[in-house]
Amino acid sequence: MAYFEQIGTVQYEGPGSKNAFAFKYYNPNEIIAGKAMKDHLRFSMSWWHTFTFRGTDPFGDVTIFRPWDEAEDDIERAKARVHAAFEFMEKMQIGYFCFHDADIAPRQQNLLETNRVLDEIVSVIRQEMDRTGIRCLWGTSNCFGDHKFVHGAATSPNASVFAYTAAQIKKAIEITQTLGGENYVFWGGREGYETLLNTDTSLELDNLARLLQMAVDYAKKIGFTGQLLIEPKPKEPTKHQYDFDTASVLSFLRKYQLEPYFKMNIEANHATLAAHTFQHELNTARVNGVFGSVDANTGDPMLGWDTDQFPTNVYDTTLAMYEVLLAGGFTSGGLNFDARVRRGSFQEDDLFLAYIAGMDTFAKGLRVASRLLEDSVFERFKAKRYESYNEGIGKDIVGGRVGFSELEAYALIHGVTSNASGRQEYLESLLNQYILEG
Amino acid sequence: MAYFEQIGTVQYEGPGSKNAFAFKYYNPNEIIAGKAMKDHLRFSMSWWHTFTFRGTDPFGDVTIFRPWDEAEDDIERAKARVHAAFEFMEKMQIGYFCFHDADIAPRQQNLLETNRVLDEIVSVIRQEMDRTGIRCLWGTSNCFGDHKFVHGAATSPNASVFAYTAAQIKKAIEITQTLGGENYVFWGGREGYETLLNTDTSLELDNLARLLQMAVDYAKKIGFTGQLLIEPKPKEPTKHQYDFDTASVLSFLRKYQLEPYFKMNIEANHATLAAHTFQHELNTARVNGVFGSVDANTGDPMLGWDTDQFPTNVYDTTLAMYEVLLAGGFTSGGLNFDARVRRGSFQEDDLFLAYIAGMDTFAKGLRVASRLLEDSVFERFKAKRYESYNEGIGKDIVGGRVGFSELEAYALIHGVTSNASGRQEYLESLLNQYILEG
Amino acid sequence: MAYFEQIGTVQYEGPGSKNAFAFKYYNPNEIIAGKAMKDHLRFSMSWWHTFTFRGTDPFGDVTIFRPWDEAEDDIERAKARVHAAFEFMEKMQIGYFCFHDADIAPRQQNLLETNRVLDEIVSVIRQEMDRTGIRCLWGTSNCFGDHKFVHGAATSPNASVFAYTAAQIKKAIEITQTLGGENYVFWGGREGYETLLNTDTSLELDNLARLLQMAVDYAKKIGFTGQLLIEPKPKEPTKHQYDFDTASVLSFLRKYQLEPYFKMNIEANHATLAAHTFQHELNTARVNGVFGSVDANTGDPMLGWDTDQFPTNVYDTTLAMYEVLLAGGFTSGGLNFDARVRRGSFQEDDLFLAYIAGMDTFAKGLRVASRLLEDSVFERFKAKRYESYNEGIGKDIVGGRVGFSELEAYALIHGVTSNASGRQEYLESLLNQYILEG
Amino acid sequence: MAYFEQIGTVQYEGPGSKNAFAFKYYNPNEIIAGKAMKDHLRFSMSWWHTFTFRGTDPFGDVTIFRPWDEAEDDIERAKARVHAAFEFMEKMQIGYFCFHDADIAPRQQNLLETNRVLDEIVSVIRQEMDRTGIRCLWGTSNCFGDHKFVHGAATSPNASVFAYTAAQIKKAIEITQTLGGENYVFWGGREGYETLLNTDTSLELDNLARLLQMAVDYAKKIGFTGQLLIEPKPKEPTKHQYDFDTASVLSFLRKYQLEPYFKMNIEANHATLAAHTFQHELNTARVNGVFGSVDANTGDPMLGWDTDQFPTNVYDTTLAMYEVLLAGGFTSGGLNFDARVRRGSFQEDDLFLAYIAGMDTFAKGLRVASRLLEDSVFERFKAKRYESYNEGIGKDIVGGRVGFSELEAYALIHGVTSNASGRQEYLESLLNQYILEG
Repeated sequence: MAYFEQIGTVQYEGPGSKNAFAFKYYNPNEIIAGKAMKDHLRFSMSWWHTFTFRGTDPFGDVTIFRPWDEAEDDIERAKARVHAAFEFMEKMQIGYFCFHDADIAPRQQNLLETNRVLDEIVSVIRQEMDRTGIRCLWGTSNCFGDHKFVHGAATSPNASVFAYTAAQIKKAIEITQTLGGENYVFWGGREGYETLLNTDTSLELDNLARLLQMAVDYAKKIGFTGQLLIEPKPKEPTKHQYDFDTASVLSFLRKYQLEPYFKMNIEANHATLAAHTFQHELNTARVNGVFGSVDANTGDPMLGWDTDQFPTNVYDTTLAMYEVLLAGGFTSGGLNFDARVRRGSFQEDDLFLAYIAGMDTFAKGLRVASRLLEDSVFERFKAKRYESYNEGIGKDIVGGRVGFSELEAYALIHGVTSNASGRQEYLESLLNQYILEG
Repeated sequence: MAYFEQIGTVQYEGPGSKNAFAFKYYNPNEIIAGKAMKDHLRFSMSWWHTFTFRGTDPFGDVTIFRPWDEAEDDIERAKARVHAAFEFMEKMQIGYFCFHDADIAPRQQNLLETNRVLDEIVSVIRQEMDRTGIRCLWGTSNCFGDHKFVHGAATSPNASVFAYTAAQIKKAIEITQTLGGENYVFWGGREGYETLLNTDTSLELDNLARLLQMAVDYAKKIGFTGQLLIEPKPKEPTKHQYDFDTASVLSFLRKYQLEPYFKMNIEANHATLAAHTFQHELNTARVNGVFGSVDANTGDPMLGWDTDQFPTNVYDTTLAMYEVLLAGGFTSGGLNFDARVRRGSFQEDDLFLAYIAGMDTFAKGLRVASRLLEDSVFERFKAKRYESYNEGIGKDIVGGRVGFSELEAYALIHGVTSNASGRQEYLESLLNQYILEG
Repeated sequence: MAYFEQIGTVQYEGPGSKNAFAFKYYNPNEIIAGKAMKDHLRFSMSWWHTFTFRGTDPFGDVTIFRPWDEAEDDIERAKARVHAAFEFMEKMQIGYFCFHDADIAPRQQNLLETNRVLDEIVSVIRQEMDRTGIRCLWGTSNCFGDHKFVHGAATSPNASVFAYTAAQIKKAIEITQTLGGENYVFWGGREGYETLLNTDTSLELDNLARLLQMAVDYAKKIGFTGQLLIEPKPKEPTKHQYDFDTASVLSFLRKYQLEPYFKMNIEANHATLAAHTFQHELNTARVNGVFGSVDANTGDPMLGWDTDQFPTNVYDTTLAMYEVLLAGGFTSGGLNFDARVRRGSFQEDDLFLAYIAGMDTFAKGLRVASRLLEDSVFERFKAKRYESYNEGIGKDIVGGRVGFSELEAYALIHGVTSNASGRQEYLESLLNQYILEG
Repeated sequence: MAYFEQIGTVQYEGPGSKNAFAFKYYNPNEIIAGKAMKDHLRFSMSWWHTFTFRGTDPFGDVTIFRPWDEAEDDIERAKARVHAAFEFMEKMQIGYFCFHDADIAPRQQNLLETNRVLDEIVSVIRQEMDRTGIRCLWGTSNCFGDHKFVHGAATSPNASVFAYTAAQIKKAIEITQTLGGENYVFWGGREGYETLLNTDTSLELDNLARLLQMAVDYAKKIGFTGQLLIEPKPKEPTKHQYDFDTASVLSFLRKYQLEPYFKMNIEANHATLAAHTFQHELNTARVNGVFGSVDANTGDPMLGWDTDQFPTNVYDTTLAMYEVLLAGGFTSGGLNFDARVRRGSFQEDDLFLAYIAGMDTFAKGLRVASRLLEDSVFERFKAKRYESYNEGIGKDIVGGRVGFSELEAYALIHGVTSNASGRQEYLESLLNQYILEG
């Protein structure tokens, strides 16, 4: 049974190719800076956007009708999706996938039954993984879609919802372990508030910390060795999400002594909704030692909601891969396409075209970023710019050998040395040259 | 010498008054919830917006021409401003002022001379304080206006600028101590970046922490007992300010073990530029135990820059005072009007009209917030809403007596209890009733 | 059959009432400025948000389960909703309703069948209207939800979709006529674009004009005397909606000589998404003579999408009613609550509480606006402010009696007269006094 | 006297050049699509940002100290700037300049004297133009900076300010004529409002129309044959600018029968502040037949104010030049760099580096756009996408041969033809390939 019969495995044909179904920049086994591109990029498919998104939006119904959704029985549909998903990943040469529990298996009448069906589908997925060698980047639990989560999950005012959340996450960590998932992600879609008039933020945040601590404990208990990741988002669906951005999450983790156990899953579109650049969020994660994984997509800077578009802007991917390389590259993380085809790109082959667009854009970004680092274009500029901290009073400042009195004495005698231009425009034109002449 | 001869002391005349130069809601000595309004509100005048702002904006020149700016000599002008400022505060019944070093005394050729002139003006201010009983809420140093700070102050790539910054802040803490300032504020107007292409955020943040540690050490050394405050702002003037919002600052302080020494100075307009409500930022500071002081103003939700308008929205001031009261009221902090008359409100009497507008709006907010708490309108709703955490499984969760396994067992048996409505619309209409029928 | 047995007719009890299910400010028959409040406000219920919205959002499923949705058969459900809707309107003392074709009757296999079912439901509605005296403010056609409209309706690249759109709108105008609708609304939810890479805006805009011209012609032909209204919105669902704001719509109508036939249906939340205040859009419609009707709701200034909240901010409703009164009040238009209960306000009684909140807030706004006009608070200030255009050179300018040469001659001799303060802060404090002391 | 002795004429060296002071993409005389690049691009220098901007921002003083600003006498300074400007343009191979009256000559005590000094400087400029062959793209009058314009210029409530505005613009048109300016621009920096509480928008808009009609009349009278242009901006400095965007301006011009006389000067940063893309505004101007000229810069999508950065994003310039080419190219207009060096790029050579960055980015954009059109990449896709309007019912719709009844009949019989995918992701990847493989 093949869902994409008309399309073969997508191959690298190079920048000049006119074949829509070929890679122009992504050459999986090509070595860049000592490592194969596929190992740098660790591309992952998102189960939800690729296989369960049906084109709805707040003003419109389904526009996407898939052959794998045709079965009457919901468990049969779930299995059909598994087969379609692996066929798709194989043809796209994608090595990883990510999933929510609710993406892969339909919810049943009660938790017991839901878990039983989950196990049934997980076993089908496991077979496909064995057959193909494709791996699980991360799993997570959907604790936001069902009506029980209307006021939050771990931050619900209803303790029985907290308990249910814990149960769902327990199971999701277990199946992620079963599937060899290299990470487990927490995105708290309803962990936030709508109005402070009815919200006790203090209790809610304490409870969120309690849940995360329980997850840490449980992962240890069962020997789950994947990395725990938190994915920040500033707003949507709630008016204010507690995990607003990387800094907010760090503030929270540090308060509750949870920092050692978590890293960040940075999403491009969430960064820009928080009024940060994607690069900024990656940078913040990196310099705080919590860079983990990436949800690769893009928003629209003119729109105020999560559009989850496929990333096609080479500036963004270059600067993102620049931070990834500075961070030493991915370890357990990867580039998960938390991106969906536009509602108007409803044909099956659009899935291929969209992934090719995203993968090529990141592949190009990697190529450019790698050359920028190799030639030390910006790093040399920065080293020079900050060199005053390597000697004299600057070295004393960094070394902790001076305080206000010594610095005042210095300033009274020496005043201020001339500043040098920041050269922003010139650096931007160098970036252009590296992008265009790569 | 009087600058506002035509205007007498502004008095409380009550809500029905038609006298533009009277308070309608601010009655300084009236007792609200056991404390005089003036002690609840601790209004403060900002030296800069009130006495040095001249109506310029990025597209226009001076529109504000003041009699106290007429002297040729800049030191004479500075002294004239002191007299005008105290006359103004007396007539407005404002008990506190806030200042930057650069507001009160003109910069001179070098640091030594600048500091000498500062001392000269400080002594004039001290005399006026003694004469009037008006006090200093906080002082700070302007480390952003001069061209030496073009690339930052403590986060400058130029070590001699760091030294100069330290020297300026040292002096500013000293004069704040001389003036009995109850707090010292850090607003890092250039502590941020324009482009990551030329920026080493890791070194810059380390250096910012170094400077703050030096400030803590120096304050201790000289026995300055005022509270140290940090004022968050997300952007402007830099593209990205390191002290983006309360959570970002907390993340930073916790990383560098600086949390015990600092509280927040929350500015309404900075909150909204960070895509938070004013109330949100106050709430975050409160539940993290770092609520300090308030820069009372408002932005325009339709505009993307700091407009520093006088606050005239009773919803905002009610919800703000609600958080202040929940935090136990101000201790060292107060309501500093970091607000300026509109460029088109260039007459001297507009200063009075604008402060009356702001003070009355906060006074009304206090009255409403106090009644809301007295009647326990929202607090009772919240207590009921979260009551499931006071017993049974909820109590176990909060008490740390259960983990994932116990909660799964609970969920398998009990499922989820019905959620109750969040009642947002109803709570908003109660708020309206309290505002309108106060 | 009663759906809201536990709730009686909501009555006016005045500002001091503690009854959640009573009006505090809306007293339908009270005369304000010579007219009953109900005739000033002409409140209308929106069929969709009140009776078909089920609490879904882009991240979550249904949270709202209504008794009128329990019937298996979709036509039975539609009829149940009619009965529930009229019971609700009666109990709320709401005199009007608005609807899309798709709200009142379920789509069927084909247009013929859909239209037949529409007629069936329309006849039930007609009976209820006759029974209760409740009237239809406006009707419209949903040309955005179904997948056929994925690339637009009148602006679809597919001509058969244009034809279908025309057919739908034809029928919707007919049933609006049958129901005595006082207006017919055009909101082009998919009339816009996602990317200019695939869009011929020139043809699309021409086609949009063609459709509107056909609607004008058809309305005339069948003797539909209701007012045609266009509802601007800047974005969402499309990236760029052609009817961005009032000015954009006017630009378009004037280009195609359609201005005489259309007025505006201004929605508060659409105004703010376009970076305008609600008041601004009303003002623009008024001064251009195209003020028609109002979709009464509010957005969240911190969020970038249409939240359609019930309006509970008295500033907004006061300033809106101020413009409405300046425009001479509603003629065919009214205040339609294009507002929905929050997803977390899922109980049936929340519908009442939310409508009470919205109606009271507008009622209070009307009261305040009316007194502001009666006392000529702002109008007198404005008359004085612009008085220089009533005499001398100002009168000559307005009268068209001078050109550049005469004005240069004037300026060379007279220069510029002193400007007066704009008094923004003072005017805002007057507004507060009128709101608080109403 | 040379101000840039150390820098020679900037030459084209091609994409591989490592010379910071060479063009990589701009080759002035190279023929692209039948026309020299310099004639396609018509680059222009902005007098204000290049020669009078001194690095100030709302939080900081001057950072830019130029040798041409050293003279004590303000008229001498103005002359020095002329010489520096022409030296700069020659070395940059820029063929045009744009100016405000206030940029080129300092305001004097009164209008008579100001005009006399203007004439004096204009004559120096005229000489330099004759010497170099450099031309004037457009002139304008600064009716926003001086305090007399605090409440507007043509929309001031003060009639004497209207008169003064007329006098200033009269003179500015005259000197633009003297300098052979090919256009005259209206940017109404204070034509807008701060609060509707004190504003009569109806009178203000009528007055704005009166001023523009006088300008049309005067231009005709003196035989000024340059194109009149209006430059839209949504906000800043005022809260709401009347010329919000292209659609708003068109709405206004059409109301007052002024459309035949004006075209648009589209600024990239103003487009994005209005929540439009730059391409959108160009497209709107094009399809309405009012495309005139371009202010070439860029804003920062994360910031809410006018940053006027040099454009360095190849996507933006490609899509902009695509619209320019579709519009038939510039006639009287051109690409004016309404852009300034960053405050931190304060060295003289940064001016060169920034202009090179901007010019190269637009040159590359032209190259890519031209090839996209040559290969008909998007145009062929669009032609296919809309082909249903070329025959059958589509042709009837476009031809005005059908109305609602005929279309309903059609829809009843034929229903809807399948829609095709919009292919957004694929089109974006084609754009990438053209940019990267140019």
